[in-house]
Amino acid sequence: MNESDDNTKISIILVNPQMGENIGAVARSMKNFALYDLRLVSPRDGWPNDKAISTSVGASNLVQNAKLYNNITDAISDLEYVYATTAARRDMNKQYILSSNLKKYFSNITKVGILFGRENSGLTNKEISLANKIITIDTDKEFTSLNIAHSVSIICYEIFKLKQKDKNFSKNIKLATQFEIENFYTHLFQSIETQGFFKTSEKKEHITQKIRNIFSRIENLSHSELQTLRGIVKILSKEES
Amino acid sequence: MNESDDNTKISIILVNPQMGENIGAVARSMKNFALYDLRLVSPRDGWPNDKAISTSVGASNLVQNAKLYNNITDAISDLEYVYATTAARRDMNKQYILSSNLKKYFSNITKVGILFGRENSGLTNKEISLANKIITIDTDKEFTSLNIAHSVSIICYEIFKLKQKDKNFSKNIKLATQFEIENFYTHLFQSIETQGFFKTSEKKEHITQKIRNIFSRIENLSHSELQTLRGIVKILSKEES
Repeated sequence: MNESDDNTKISIILVNPQMGENIGAVARSMKNFALYDLRLVSPRDGWPNDKAISTSVGASNLVQNAKLYNNITDAISDLEYVYATTAARRDMNKQYILSSNLKKYFSNITKVGILFGRENSGLTNKEISLANKIITIDTDKEFTSLNIAHSVSIICYEIFKLKQKDKNFSKNIKLATQFEIENFYTHLFQSIETQGFFKTSEKKEHITQKIRNIFSRIENLSHSELQTLRGIVKILSKEES
Repeated sequence: MNESDDNTKISIILVNPQMGENIGAVARSMKNFALYDLRLVSPRDGWPNDKAISTSVGASNLVQNAKLYNNITDAISDLEYVYATTAARRDMNKQYILSSNLKKYFSNITKVGILFGRENSGLTNKEISLANKIITIDTDKEFTSLNIAHSVSIICYEIFKLKQKDKNFSKNIKLATQFEIENFYTHLFQSIETQGFFKTSEKKEHITQKIRNIFSRIENLSHSELQTLRGIVKILSKEES
């Protein structure tokens, strides 16, 4: 992988990072997971920082190429979508995403930035309000304080996994749309109802929910696969084609 | 969560860790993800280590309770299953597991240990041979060298996610067995074949593979859910019950 491919589209933004050691450790873990755009908003101890270079171990190019900003607004001005990361959930009117569930939110976005706050106090509510959504790493509730480089590492790791999955998954496959999936359910439910599969209306409610719960667990159901499922229902019902 | 619950069953074992800072960072991330048993095999700079305490930030109890061993054999003697972690895959006759795929390997084992090697050189082949299996974290091939605390953090995070899933997933749910799933396929394929769904034998091969590929993506399919799927096929085929 090199810096010119699509991995450059995700930027890691550290807001007022305090320790150079952590900035270096962040750079190292970004490079482990093929992310290259590191942005720093007013690092506490100034910039450049020798400790950042020494802890970056082999990722010193990221530290040297890090972009420096005076405030978050400038740091995110060229981005299309911004996530804020927080340890615990805060009472803000923003949708939370778990780090383990980034999947559906990272498609079709081209320039993404992810904000990480200060080591001791994270991001302020005002800073979070500049982001579109919040990402949270699920930890033990008794001890939610993650080291900043560990947080970055986990998020970069999850993004890398998604990209690997995407790579294994051919771009030419057309996924089933939500509309087509709903049509499949309607067709299926009508077909089994005709045969008396639901004994009562309570059972209908329960069983249709159960069936939805089964099929919705199939990740990346393709248009062609859905056609096959539809074909099965159709032929078993002996419908006229 | 507290230290007396089932989370104590996974031990993190650092083999000849070099820097106290890393031992502290490891302890912190273990606590983030509700793991408590830290074992150290001959730390380079002796033990106790003040730097380990200072970087553990709130997890100093883990550092203070860390168990000290002279060699790996002693450190794993009470464990039932041992994993070694490596950055790159080595040519050894041992099965590799990706960190993102721990799921199927962590059930029904009660005392598990995970070995992490030295910061600069990892584990030796001889040390790896003491383990039952190898866990690898998938990174960019161009830069595979992970910080030891980041590696521990990612593994602990994956284990925590599995436990959360297990928790959300009631213990009382009986999963479908592979035998029952095969019976479902047989029933389904026979039913659609009777209706002429497979035009030729090549198509039969292709379509049955495709159908298996759809249903095999449903994780944790329960016995009851499989019964529902079977019931759908049965009622659509208008079989006598």
